[in-house]
Amino acid sequence: MLPYSPPLDDMRFALDLAGLGELSSLEPFGDASSDLVRALLDEAGRFVTDVIAPLYRVGDEHGSVLQDGEVVTPPGYKEAYSRFVEAGWPAAAFPPEWGGGGMPFAVGVAIQEMVTAADMAFSLCPMLTYSATEMLLSHGSDEQHATYLEKLVTGEWTGTMVLTEPHAGSDVGALSTKAVPAGDGTWRITGQKIFITWGDHDVADNIVHIVLARTPGAPPGTKGISTFIVPKYLVNPDGTRGERNDITTVSLEHKLGIHASPTCALSFGDHGGAVGYLVGLEHQGMAYMFTMMNNARLQVGIEGLAVAERAHQHAAAYATERRQGRAVGAPRDQASLIVEHPDVRRMVMLMRSQTEAMRAVMYRNAAAIDFAKHHPEESRRRWEEHVAAILTPVSKAWGTDLGVDMASLDVQVHGGMGFIEETGAAQLLRDSRIAPIYEGTNGIQAIDLVTRKLPLDGGDAIRRLLGEMRTTADSLNGENKVIGERLAAALDTVDTATEHLLGAEPNDALAGATPYLEMLGTTLGGWMLGKGAAAAAEGPDGFSPGFCQAKQATARFYAVHVLSTVPGLLGTVTAGADSIFAVDQAAL
Amino acid sequence: MLPYSPPLDDMRFALDLAGLGELSSLEPFGDASSDLVRALLDEAGRFVTDVIAPLYRVGDEHGSVLQDGEVVTPPGYKEAYSRFVEAGWPAAAFPPEWGGGGMPFAVGVAIQEMVTAADMAFSLCPMLTYSATEMLLSHGSDEQHATYLEKLVTGEWTGTMVLTEPHAGSDVGALSTKAVPAGDGTWRITGQKIFITWGDHDVADNIVHIVLARTPGAPPGTKGISTFIVPKYLVNPDGTRGERNDITTVSLEHKLGIHASPTCALSFGDHGGAVGYLVGLEHQGMAYMFTMMNNARLQVGIEGLAVAERAHQHAAAYATERRQGRAVGAPRDQASLIVEHPDVRRMVMLMRSQTEAMRAVMYRNAAAIDFAKHHPEESRRRWEEHVAAILTPVSKAWGTDLGVDMASLDVQVHGGMGFIEETGAAQLLRDSRIAPIYEGTNGIQAIDLVTRKLPLDGGDAIRRLLGEMRTTADSLNGENKVIGERLAAALDTVDTATEHLLGAEPNDALAGATPYLEMLGTTLGGWMLGKGAAAAAEGPDGFSPGFCQAKQATARFYAVHVLSTVPGLLGTVTAGADSIFAVDQAAL
Repeated sequence: MLPYSPPLDDMRFALDLAGLGELSSLEPFGDASSDLVRALLDEAGRFVTDVIAPLYRVGDEHGSVLQDGEVVTPPGYKEAYSRFVEAGWPAAAFPPEWGGGGMPFAVGVAIQEMVTAADMAFSLCPMLTYSATEMLLSHGSDEQHATYLEKLVTGEWTGTMVLTEPHAGSDVGALSTKAVPAGDGTWRITGQKIFITWGDHDVADNIVHIVLARTPGAPPGTKGISTFIVPKYLVNPDGTRGERNDITTVSLEHKLGIHASPTCALSFGDHGGAVGYLVGLEHQGMAYMFTMMNNARLQVGIEGLAVAERAHQHAAAYATERRQGRAVGAPRDQASLIVEHPDVRRMVMLMRSQTEAMRAVMYRNAAAIDFAKHHPEESRRRWEEHVAAILTPVSKAWGTDLGVDMASLDVQVHGGMGFIEETGAAQLLRDSRIAPIYEGTNGIQAIDLVTRKLPLDGGDAIRRLLGEMRTTADSLNGENKVIGERLAAALDTVDTATEHLLGAEPNDALAGATPYLEMLGTTLGGWMLGKGAAAAAEGPDGFSPGFCQAKQATARFYAVHVLSTVPGLLGTVTAGADSIFAVDQAAL
Repeated sequence: MLPYSPPLDDMRFALDLAGLGELSSLEPFGDASSDLVRALLDEAGRFVTDVIAPLYRVGDEHGSVLQDGEVVTPPGYKEAYSRFVEAGWPAAAFPPEWGGGGMPFAVGVAIQEMVTAADMAFSLCPMLTYSATEMLLSHGSDEQHATYLEKLVTGEWTGTMVLTEPHAGSDVGALSTKAVPAGDGTWRITGQKIFITWGDHDVADNIVHIVLARTPGAPPGTKGISTFIVPKYLVNPDGTRGERNDITTVSLEHKLGIHASPTCALSFGDHGGAVGYLVGLEHQGMAYMFTMMNNARLQVGIEGLAVAERAHQHAAAYATERRQGRAVGAPRDQASLIVEHPDVRRMVMLMRSQTEAMRAVMYRNAAAIDFAKHHPEESRRRWEEHVAAILTPVSKAWGTDLGVDMASLDVQVHGGMGFIEETGAAQLLRDSRIAPIYEGTNGIQAIDLVTRKLPLDGGDAIRRLLGEMRTTADSLNGENKVIGERLAAALDTVDTATEHLLGAEPNDALAGATPYLEMLGTTLGGWMLGKGAAAAAEGPDGFSPGFCQAKQATARFYAVHVLSTVPGLLGTVTAGADSIFAVDQAAL
């Protein structure tokens, strides 16, 4: 009813375009040969199709529920998670020394795309575990590594990120959860936290909460935040699970979507204080969060991509099966497939082309994170760090907005059936709607892009990236020349907008941030599709002529129908704040 | 929690702009003086706030359910509907001879906006009744008038429109429900119908189904469709309710939204045939549907407006109450209201300005329907008929797409709280999502606009309308000059696109239909806001200086941030079908 067939060819194509070949030549990724990655993705594709995709509807219908203070996940989740762990999928992109598979982050992201497309609510559990694990890998002590890492890398235990409080959402610095020293090197944590994804559940034996809290005398705001490990169950000296920590699951949220993902309100320390262990140094909580922000935000962007892919497949399947009306020039005696009607086909192509654009940009983003960490040359690492810094808020915000739009188009292609829950299109829309909100709202991403990323190297980082895009535009020729033309026109606009924002007063720049991010995302998508079209025109090994033809046709569709809209955004990007503040607050 | 305060000032302003003054000088509308309309709207506003708005969340949570073959509506619906009928609201825009209030359709639409904003699911019951009533008013016999009209006009009985079958959705002509003569002047109806809005319920004593069916020997397709009255309960000669007709409620759909609105699968004639009465002539079913299509489609457009209005109020209330982070230049010691952040304020202004634009266009659309019927001059009637013909698909599709977008922005402004069902923003999004689908999908509206409406008078109707818009653009000056400039630039684009589509091959025109409709809708919105700004600059009687200032500031915001995007759509409108069909159907 809701088909999902992992788009393995396009995933491989996008990984190649992102630089998998070069990545596999780097020291830590010697195993990530093209053949091995192909085999791995094939295997992951089979796994998610067989084991995870069937959870999708049942998870939505049952949802996770709170019974006697414990979260019970929907039927099938516990077993599926066990098989997920047994098969080793959580570990793919972690270092072998902790039981990981040693794959690049970019390959991990490709696997995540499939898991998320199969069931977004399920995928959040390993995604949050990934973040918690990465936090400990980067900032934990040797003892903490020994106690937690292997369990987390393998997925035997899961992790969470515990930040939000009722009055501290986008403004994390406003949090008030307290941590006081217990005198034995441990800490006691007390406070109320909300919106904790997979904050309690029954699919694994223990949960390692990474909790942000304030120590005695800490400065106000983000400078006074520290990071703690607060496990659901304490860990015995021999590494086995010990007694229950002082953490209560107060309630689960009743949400628009991702019903199977338990979104918990947790109370720490109702009975004297939950036992916590300081990670790294006091007051470095926000700095530590920043080191893992790119990965986490890109992973949320991947949710947009995953939903878009599944929505596209769902819509294409229906449009090539449902008959209604008669297309221009079609025979009189039979109704036409709706995909023969230009307006329906346009919707399917919008979904296809934007999904491919997102994938190409996001995999490049992931590869930039890999290169920035592991490339031997410092100058290259620095450049890739800038690329990752610029692309990440775009992947997150542009990608998740498109995820919602594509899910909505799937509803539309299905007509009346799209509004019926059993069809599954409605669920894609409901599930997708969280992604523009969490892990920094899309507005926060736009502000980050304009106020922190554009100024990198005095603006030279974004200028260099736009220059690379211009080189691609200039090089496109033959049938793909039209992509180069539309890309050049878009770049003219983005150049102007970028220089405008670099020179603008703060509020004027903030006023244009969201449409600027949309403009940049759309243009980046056109750039990567243009590069892909050029590559496809060469008929690369391992891809069929039909695939290469469709790849180019899709890129040209995007250039003509999507990239062409970029110049229309210049007015709103450069309008400044005056018109936004011209109506009195009281009259809004 | 989910505030709704009818925007009475802006509604009066939009009615004035649409020509209420002139309408009230027409013969049938002598009662519709400005003062009387104001009093009526005030009263309606109080009624919907007190009686209907409280149903909103409870209706969503309970939904309508099927029990022992009968639909049971949520708690409170039956009583609210009784009070709605007692107060006379269903009758407002019907002729006094059948118990109506004699108001113009435009005023009826303003009342509908409030009812729909208060509870969209509830509002569908009177809306469908309106359509059924109008069908009988226009095409029913004297006997049918005597039997049904007063009951329907007052709302004592409700009506439905029974068109869709599993294989006949957008393609109504594919329907196969049968009607055979019973030999006594009545007919026997047999067939399965789906997606029947308020097809069964417990809020009124009888339901008058208007059913499309095929008579023996009827030609295939739309030319062989006839229209029948098929009441749930037969009517005795004395007008009282008689025995149950042969109609079974098979099931209710489990939908994304509008849970309180029972969407029924109905089976006609399981026990020998439901008794039906032919309306008008055989085989004229589609022609009769066309006479009422403008009203019904505009009314669905109003759903988009109503949701947008409520979403705007909801978002504005939250943004002026929730504090988070510190705005540029704000004092250090307190978190700022989120509405002080430019990106949030931009969202609220997008909602405000687009809602006002929709209202101005839709009320003008309604007034055009009134003038087309009732103006004494034939040439004016003909012109207004053309205006209504062009505006209606725009109101429906542009308006309902914006309804979904504005509901989604409300979710976004609420951040994490927006994803929680109790907040109510999610429900607005879920409810709104049906409107782009039913009463002709938005794709069908775009096709109607491009293939039937642009060619009116050989293209001269749209050219004249664009000319009127150009006159407005040229006349705007002073602080509102910027609106004129952006409107002129948009019109340059729309002119080009219009001439292109008028001369294009059928599939090329169809390929550009949806973005053309978006372009035209956005420009019409800018035109009406521009006219409104010019009127507000004069400081009209009955509107405060604050209102007039905000009206102009809102129009300028729209010009700079929304209207300015129109030229960016030219590429996709004029691209033609080639790029859309370039990927093989099998590879989609």
